[in-house]
Amino acid sequence: MSAVLDLACELIRRPSVTPEDAGCQALVAERLAAAGFAIEHHPHGPVANLWARLGARRPLLVLAGHTDVVPPGPAAAWHTPPFEPTVRDGFLHGRGAADMKGAVAAMVVAAERFAARHPRPAGSLALLLTSDEEGPAVDGTARVVETLRARGEAVDWCLVGEPSSEQRLGDVVKHGRRGSLNGTLTVVGVQGHVAYPERADNPVHRAAPALAELCAARWDEGDEDFPPTSFQISNLHAGTGADNVIPGELTVRFNFRYAPGQDPASLERAVRAILDRHRLRYRLAWDPPSQPFITRGGPLLAAVLDAVEAVCGLRPRCSTGGGTSDGRFLAAAGAQVVELGPLNATIHQVDERVAVADLERLAEVYGRIIETLLAPG
Amino acid sequence: MSAVLDLACELIRRPSVTPEDAGCQALVAERLAAAGFAIEHHPHGPVANLWARLGARRPLLVLAGHTDVVPPGPAAAWHTPPFEPTVRDGFLHGRGAADMKGAVAAMVVAAERFAARHPRPAGSLALLLTSDEEGPAVDGTARVVETLRARGEAVDWCLVGEPSSEQRLGDVVKHGRRGSLNGTLTVVGVQGHVAYPERADNPVHRAAPALAELCAARWDEGDEDFPPTSFQISNLHAGTGADNVIPGELTVRFNFRYAPGQDPASLERAVRAILDRHRLRYRLAWDPPSQPFITRGGPLLAAVLDAVEAVCGLRPRCSTGGGTSDGRFLAAAGAQVVELGPLNATIHQVDERVAVADLERLAEVYGRIIETLLAPG
Repeated sequence: MSAVLDLACELIRRPSVTPEDAGCQALVAERLAAAGFAIEHHPHGPVANLWARLGARRPLLVLAGHTDVVPPGPAAAWHTPPFEPTVRDGFLHGRGAADMKGAVAAMVVAAERFAARHPRPAGSLALLLTSDEEGPAVDGTARVVETLRARGEAVDWCLVGEPSSEQRLGDVVKHGRRGSLNGTLTVVGVQGHVAYPERADNPVHRAAPALAELCAARWDEGDEDFPPTSFQISNLHAGTGADNVIPGELTVRFNFRYAPGQDPASLERAVRAILDRHRLRYRLAWDPPSQPFITRGGPLLAAVLDAVEAVCGLRPRCSTGGGTSDGRFLAAAGAQVVELGPLNATIHQVDERVAVADLERLAEVYGRIIETLLAPG
Repeated sequence: MSAVLDLACELIRRPSVTPEDAGCQALVAERLAAAGFAIEHHPHGPVANLWARLGARRPLLVLAGHTDVVPPGPAAAWHTPPFEPTVRDGFLHGRGAADMKGAVAAMVVAAERFAARHPRPAGSLALLLTSDEEGPAVDGTARVVETLRARGEAVDWCLVGEPSSEQRLGDVVKHGRRGSLNGTLTVVGVQGHVAYPERADNPVHRAAPALAELCAARWDEGDEDFPPTSFQISNLHAGTGADNVIPGELTVRFNFRYAPGQDPASLERAVRAILDRHRLRYRLAWDPPSQPFITRGGPLLAAVLDAVEAVCGLRPRCSTGGGTSDGRFLAAAGAQVVELGPLNATIHQVDERVAVADLERLAEVYGRIIETLLAPG
C-alpha cells in the first residue's frame, strides 16, 4: 500500500461525522510532530481544530482541510460499509474518501516528505484541520484564523484540499468562491375567513407579483470569473392548515450567491426596491453573509497550475462555481486561496470513493506546490 | 323566564362541541313528541341527527338547525363560563347562544305553539337537527336528506336558523349561498443544491408568475344576487427547511367561492388554462364542492320577509354572503331555502351572546312563517 492510501484508510476508519473528529487529528498531529511540526490543538466546544506549523518565517503556506464528514445515511444503501475503507477495482470506498480524507492524507504525506527534504524551508508550512466544515462552520477554521490574526500570524497562501476536480484529477481548481447570503422575508397581511376576503388581506396574493419579479430579476452581470448573482427561494410558507382561513403572513426564505463585485447592502437595497414598488407590508431579516473571494494570479495560483500540469499532464480550468468553503475565512484574513482536490462526483453520496492512483498523484501535486513556494533557493 | 330563554339555557348547559350532541336532541325530541311530532333518530357514527315531523301531507316545511357548537377555547378568556348560560344586561351569554341554540329553542317553541293551535295543518312541519354542522358536515344533514330522498319524502321549503342578522334582528336573511370548492395545486420542479441552480428547476420561481395571474384573475362578473367568484390561496408550502436546497415541489391549497351561474368544471378549465400558459408541470386535485344555491322568490321567501316586517318592523335585505351552510343539502334536494336567525356579531368568539328580547321575537317570527305556510285555510 502507498503511504497516502494507508493514511486515508486510517482516517476513514474513524467515524468522524460532524462535529466529531474521532481521533483523526490526533493521528495527524502525531505524524506531523514526528516530522518536526509544532502542534497546537484549538478545541472549541465539540469542535476539534489542529494547527501544525513548520518554520517561523514568512511567507506562510497553509494546507487547509477538514476531518469531519457528512452522515453516511442508511448503511444498507452502501455496497461497502461506509466506515470500513475498502479498495475495489482501483477505488478506495468509504465516507470521506473524496471529501476530504483522501486529500488530508495526501497533504500530510506531502508535508512529511517536504519536511524530511527541507528541515529549514524558505518560509513556513502549516496544516489547518477542523472537524466543523460540514456543519455550521462557526467553531472551526474561522476560530483558528481569528487566533492567528490576534497573535499577528499572517497567512500568505492557502491551499484547500476540497474536491475540485470534475472528470480527471486536476482538471478544475477553484480560485475563488461566490458569497452566500440568506434572508427571511415576511409579508404581512390580515388573517380572515376565506368567505369574507374583503375583510382580510391575503399576503400571498399581495406578494405573488413581487415574488415573480424577484425570481425574474437580473441583479448584475457577473464578471470574467463569476456568473451573475443568483437568487433562489429555498423555503416558502403560508397558512394555518385550515382551508377556510386566509393566512395572515407569508414567510419566504431565500439565498443569494454573489461575486466579490456585489455586496449584501446593494442586494438588500435592490430587494427592498422591488418590495416597496409592490407596496408590501413586510419585514426583512438577514443572516451574516459568507463573503466571496477571488485569487486572480499570484505565486500560489501559478504554482498550482504548473504542478498539476507537470504531474497530471493537463492545464486546470479555474472555476468559482459551487458552494462556499472554509477558504473564505483565510481569504478574509488576507491570504491568496486556491482549492485543489480529487474528483467530486461521489461526494455526499452513498458509495463515496476516490481513485487510488489519484491519491498518490495528489500528494505529488501538493508536494510540487510546496516545493515551488517554500524550497530554499 | 320566557319559554324560549328557558329552553335556550337548557341547550347551552349541554356542552355539545362537534360532533357531540350531549343530550340536546333527546330534550328536543321529548318536547316535540309531546306536541304530536313523530320522532326519528338517525345517528351516523359519532353524529346525532333528529327528524321530527308533524303531519304527512305536502307541502312540507322543514325548520333546520344544529345542536353542535364550536369549541369555546380557553374558558379563562370568557367573562362567564361558556357552558353555564348566564343572563347579563339583557343578553344570554354562552357558547352556542347565537350559533345556534337560541334559534333552535325559538324553532321548538314556535313548533309547539303551532302544533297546539293546528293539530291538523295544511301540510307538514318538520324539524331537522344535526350535531355535525360545525364539523365535516358529512354524517349530518346530508345523510338525513339522503334518507328522505330514498323514501320519497319531498321537502318543499326549508327555513334554516343560522345567525343571519347583522345589526338588528331580521335586517338580513340569506336567500342563497355561494358554492365552495377547494383544490390542491402541486407544481413540480427539480430539487437541487442552491449553489447549482442550473442543475435544478425551482418550482417556486416557475410558479410565481402563474400564482400572480391566478390571484389577479376575474373569473366572472357574478349576478344580481352574487358577487363575482372569489379565489383565495389558503395554504402554501415549499422547501425542505434547509437553506441550501432548492425545493422539488410547491404545494398550493386554494378555495373558490362561486355563484350558481359558475361551476367547478369551468373553474378547473380556467385554472388549467393559466397553468398551461405558464408551461408548468403540475398536478391538480379537487375536493368535492359545496354546491351553491339561490331562492329567488316563492312562498317561503315571501312569508319570511312579511313575518320579519310584521314582528320587527323592518324589511330584511336578502344576502348570499358568507360561508356555506347545511341549507345547501336541502336546496340540492329541491327545496326552497331561506336562512333567518339572530345577530352573528359574536359567533365563534369568546363571550358569544344573544339578546334575550330577540329570542322571543325570533320565535314569533318563526311562528308567523309557519302559520302563513301551513295554517289550514
